[in-house]
Amino acid sequence: MKQILVVGVGAGNPEQLTVQAVNALRRVDVFFVLDKGDVKQELVDLREEILRRYAPDGDYRVVVGRDPERDRRAGLEGDRPIAGSSAYVESVDDWRRRRADVCAGMIAAELGEDQVGAFLVWGDPSLYDSTLAILDDILARGELGFEIEVIPGISSVSALAARHRVGLNQVGKPIQITTGRRLAKKWPDDVDDVVVMLDAQTAFTQHTDQDADIYWGAYLGTPDELLIAGPLAEVAEEIVEVRAEARRRKGWIMDTYLLRRNRK
Amino acid sequence: MKQILVVGVGAGNPEQLTVQAVNALRRVDVFFVLDKGDVKQELVDLREEILRRYAPDGDYRVVVGRDPERDRRAGLEGDRPIAGSSAYVESVDDWRRRRADVCAGMIAAELGEDQVGAFLVWGDPSLYDSTLAILDDILARGELGFEIEVIPGISSVSALAARHRVGLNQVGKPIQITTGRRLAKKWPDDVDDVVVMLDAQTAFTQHTDQDADIYWGAYLGTPDELLIAGPLAEVAEEIVEVRAEARRRKGWIMDTYLLRRNRK
Ligand SMILES: C[S@@+](CC[C@H](N)C(=O)[O-])C[C@H]1O[C@@H](n2cnc3c(N)ncnc32)[C@H](O)[C@@H]1O
Ligand SMILES: C[S@@+](CC[C@H](N)C(=O)[O-])C[C@H]1O[C@@H](n2cnc3c(N)ncnc32)[C@H](O)[C@@H]1O
Repeated sequence: MKQILVVGVGAGNPEQLTVQAVNALRRVDVFFVLDKGDVKQELVDLREEILRRYAPDGDYRVVVGRDPERDRRAGLEGDRPIAGSSAYVESVDDWRRRRADVCAGMIAAELGEDQVGAFLVWGDPSLYDSTLAILDDILARGELGFEIEVIPGISSVSALAARHRVGLNQVGKPIQITTGRRLAKKWPDDVDDVVVMLDAQTAFTQHTDQDADIYWGAYLGTPDELLIAGPLAEVAEEIVEVRAEARRRKGWIMDTYLLRRNRK
Repeated sequence: MKQILVVGVGAGNPEQLTVQAVNALRRVDVFFVLDKGDVKQELVDLREEILRRYAPDGDYRVVVGRDPERDRRAGLEGDRPIAGSSAYVESVDDWRRRRADVCAGMIAAELGEDQVGAFLVWGDPSLYDSTLAILDDILARGELGFEIEVIPGISSVSALAARHRVGLNQVGKPIQITTGRRLAKKWPDDVDDVVVMLDAQTAFTQHTDQDADIYWGAYLGTPDELLIAGPLAEVAEEIVEVRAEARRRKGWIMDTYLLRRNRK
């Protein structure tokens, strides 16, 4: 039976792979990579650094598939999400189907019956990553069989909290992990602690009327890491500027933040 | 300056320490442990196994402090939380102060000025763990100075998702991480995907009217690991039974689950 490992490799610091992940990398015959052609050179370098460091004998192949384009404007009006629009979800579903086609092709053509293939996933495979859904899609079609093993990784959320030396939750309280798109619509009900990912629109700027603190981090775990924390109303503008400047300089950005509302 | 490492060691599988954590353990002069006297022997064994495996030269000391008792009935009426009661938070705050006293005493007495101390934390230090709050408490008193470094770990939430090979979120949707106590009151607003920790009361049984799936795991990462998944209404009773039986047999249980509400 073909085996597919889905390996969380942490959010940017190659030391944040687990021993389990390191051992898994050594078992891999074929690494599968989806490449849109515009993948940031630094992320490619980071992936190569991980393989060089932890699978040094080079006894594997890397197979690169062409990642299909996603309609990034679906469900948006200008920069803002269209309320109640399902276009966003549909565009992601459609994209996932086309990615499944590409992945199924690679696995069928490139992985031998008793071989081990792997997808490396940034952070933890359970958070805002489509690899598992794609593999389930392929299995559901019934044309291709393989076993899946998932190896958890340090998420950018855990990395963020560690760098700011804070907990995500207050005593006995819940935490919500959400997207910039959703936070732009409203602060979620009944939670004071909100972690935001996938925020291209600095949605925190819409909540500066809240008595809240923000713990912000970009390029976590990498040499370019940026950290800013403080009362939201006081540091929001600084984050917007630092973020824009970094993005200009590097051509891309990945950032995450925790918003913590203060309760008397 | 004294240095204190707060090291996430994963939820039970010693292979789920990161390379960063392994390297950190080797730098430690003194490991601090809080022990209530009733700590499960298996968890003590697991901690010792981690040290044996990753700090094999034994060039460190382990200092054990007496963990003060917490009033576990505060804020409860029978087995149920008292609605709106702040007694729970207060009892935890008071407990934390007394733990801070114990920790401050250990650090002052047992850690030399240029030494490295460490607290090992199960899972990830950012999730429902009081170590960071205790250390902040001690620093705020101003009598003792030290630097804190946090090393993230694989949380039981990531471990759960990996073992069930599922993502925590649906496409573009939020996730809430909460406690059994809160889920017993209600299903949180506006979220379909809910991760539940610290549930001593099998609160999922109160939501079997929902069209939801449950992904449940106990003793994750250990040889006793238990996994059950399926439609909530169909498997809730099985989980209650398996959980009760395991708890009887071992004398303790640690379990976590994801509830995923289905949307047409
Ligand atoms: C597609 S999601 C993948 C998340 C990933 N699976 C994880 O566990 O972190 C991408 C989002 O993760 C966050 N992210 C990932 N890596 C990051 C890093 N190194 N620094 C800051 N944020 C990061 C950002 O919010 C980004 O928009
Ligand atoms: C005090 S909290 C600490 C959580 C920890 N910091 C983490 O990141 O997993 C303890 C709760 O974590 C969950 N938990 C921790 N270890 C677990 C394991 N090995 N299996 C299942 N649940 C676990 C349970 O819900 C338990 O009630």
